[in-house]
Amino acid sequence: MLSIDTVWDNIDKVRGSGPVVHSITNYVVMNSTANALLSAGASPIMAHAKEELEELIAIAGALVLNIGTLSPEWIESMRLGASIAAANYKPVILDPVGAGASALRTQTALSLLEEGGISIVRGNASEIMALAGITSTTRGVDSCHDTSEAEKAASALAKKYRCVVAVSGCIDVITDGDTMYTIRGGSEYMALVTGMGCIATALCGAHMAICEDMLGAAVSAMGCMAAAGGLAATASNGPGSFAVQFIDALHKLTEKDINRLVEVRVVE
Amino acid sequence: MLSIDTVWDNIDKVRGSGPVVHSITNYVVMNSTANALLSAGASPIMAHAKEELEELIAIAGALVLNIGTLSPEWIESMRLGASIAAANYKPVILDPVGAGASALRTQTALSLLEEGGISIVRGNASEIMALAGITSTTRGVDSCHDTSEAEKAASALAKKYRCVVAVSGCIDVITDGDTMYTIRGGSEYMALVTGMGCIATALCGAHMAICEDMLGAAVSAMGCMAAAGGLAATASNGPGSFAVQFIDALHKLTEKDINRLVEVRVVE
Amino acid sequence: MLSIDTVWDNIDKVRGSGPVVHSITNYVVMNSTANALLSAGASPIMAHAKEELEELIAIAGALVLNIGTLSPEWIESMRLGASIAAANYKPVILDPVGAGASALRTQTALSLLEEGGISIVRGNASEIMALAGITSTTRGVDSCHDTSEAEKAASALAKKYRCVVAVSGCIDVITDGDTMYTIRGGSEYMALVTGMGCIATALCGAHMAICEDMLGAAVSAMGCMAAAGGLAATASNGPGSFAVQFIDALHKLTEKDINRLVEVRVVE
Repeated sequence: MLSIDTVWDNIDKVRGSGPVVHSITNYVVMNSTANALLSAGASPIMAHAKEELEELIAIAGALVLNIGTLSPEWIESMRLGASIAAANYKPVILDPVGAGASALRTQTALSLLEEGGISIVRGNASEIMALAGITSTTRGVDSCHDTSEAEKAASALAKKYRCVVAVSGCIDVITDGDTMYTIRGGSEYMALVTGMGCIATALCGAHMAICEDMLGAAVSAMGCMAAAGGLAATASNGPGSFAVQFIDALHKLTEKDINRLVEVRVVE
Repeated sequence: MLSIDTVWDNIDKVRGSGPVVHSITNYVVMNSTANALLSAGASPIMAHAKEELEELIAIAGALVLNIGTLSPEWIESMRLGASIAAANYKPVILDPVGAGASALRTQTALSLLEEGGISIVRGNASEIMALAGITSTTRGVDSCHDTSEAEKAASALAKKYRCVVAVSGCIDVITDGDTMYTIRGGSEYMALVTGMGCIATALCGAHMAICEDMLGAAVSAMGCMAAAGGLAATASNGPGSFAVQFIDALHKLTEKDINRLVEVRVVE
Repeated sequence: MLSIDTVWDNIDKVRGSGPVVHSITNYVVMNSTANALLSAGASPIMAHAKEELEELIAIAGALVLNIGTLSPEWIESMRLGASIAAANYKPVILDPVGAGASALRTQTALSLLEEGGISIVRGNASEIMALAGITSTTRGVDSCHDTSEAEKAASALAKKYRCVVAVSGCIDVITDGDTMYTIRGGSEYMALVTGMGCIATALCGAHMAICEDMLGAAVSAMGCMAAAGGLAATASNGPGSFAVQFIDALHKLTEKDINRLVEVRVVE
């Protein structure tokens, strides 16, 4: 059974081994995601050219696909990246930004899932519900739903695609379709900073790169977010300073902080 | 007649209703613009794929077009976006970044204006002068001119395209070609942070989404910038900390701050 | 002989003359690079459309090419930009991000060098070694090697392409193939913030725009980085606050700071 100890263990392993995380992600969050990965001890690569994916994925410990600012060429790169990663036994993490808000996003996310090889899907409740085929109205990419809907959608999606689904929100929900965990922590500022979800997804990549257990990696990455968010909030005067403090927090989080700021629970 | 009260009223409405603002904008400012919109209480969407514009503009309250890092494909997306917005009665706001510095920028901005449906054009003096056909030498995108030239150019442009023109500078100039307002406030640091103008344009989008009066929306968005800039400057030690404080300020600005830090005047 | 005085002289000239630096750079660092240039007193242009390169390079004092997020279209823009700059006697600075990690990156950087007209190449040790044909394994873009390898690779590359090579690391190495300088200063946080190397390259552009001596411009730009890094570190609590303080430091660095925080040495 996973516990709060898993969170610290994996954070510590990321810092110790510095996994390379290759991201094909959206323009909005490239900078903040790269900084978050560096602060957490990982080593980011951002590249989308089909010509170099084979070589770069070969040196990466995980591949993160994020559909936040799609175009047909980037979708092709993501599909190629996913197939290269699969052939090289590298975990792939998917962030279905805005799924449900447009057919392009929903279909791109689903087709990546259909092709297989996705280890973790990390999204907000409305995105996960859209992928699970549960009707919802996405308003922007920052929607919030109650946890029961998220749990149901996460379970359905996890079972269908044999992956782990992490739903971030006031309470995070993480499941492999079998066991379900919730995580409490973080800060209300997290909804006011663009790309916090994308950072969570990137951290899932860093944790998957050092932990074979998909559920453990997702729980520890989300636990890391919750702890860094809680720590950052105490030193912030608004969303701008929170974003800065959050990056600092990823770098200096201690085991005590985790235990103090995060609650991990199994849903019975 | 618009007054300082309009500024606070619209800031408060944006916070209360959380309008979705869809931006097709430049790579440099996507992150800071999204964060500014979130801090101001709006909900940003950044997307350029032609395949999804129809659906995303449908859920947005305004569309912002920003030509800062153009390419032919993105110009096509902007034109398509403008026509979808027009067909759906959604306001369109244009930021003609670097107009006058290259024919591509000037012509793209003018062709978007010619096609109609632009509610507000927000630029600096040299950009607005270039679009108004008044000779000027743009040096980068951060030029500054005296207010009389800006007023003349803004009036000409507003009349020609039946839109509101907002010229940002030491003193902002805002006109619908009929009534003209100036706004004082802000901070000298604003010229030292990339994308502050683009944020002003995005806020025009947020304010247009909750206010049918184009002139009122432009005045309140620029007033919001001036107040946040003034508030942020007091807590800053340079352009880096100013940028952070500015995002905090957008989130915590009060009516008192507006009254204390901003001056709105009708030009007789 | 160059000395610490060169560093301050060029920093002061950049502030006084505000050179326009045109960058065709990667998505990850566009925002932070533009802010660094503004804080240092320069004026950034970010543009890649082939249709406008001629006009924009005409108003720029230097062109910076950065291959961090390549695609075939952007490579074409970089080659066109380099040829326009050469025809107009504008210095070109190259950042070979990730050279050695993929054939696309190595070959793109080498082909830009082969075509001539590059004044300064700024990279980390593994990138410069890859371009010099010295075997190395690039792991991400943040690798570190010892100085003797960097010196050897930098000399070989500088001689082959008749340019200045600046290798950033714990100790920076800068050479024109004839004289070699080392610079000490900076902060360990610099390796934990994405795009610090890209900022160094952009500052090389700003310094080349106001200084005809390629070696002097590279030394002063790297000295500026070292001083700003050292100054920022004293006010930081992690990589997030360091990045903010670094931008502030670029704006407020004094001659005293340079003398206190940086050491420039000729390698005998």
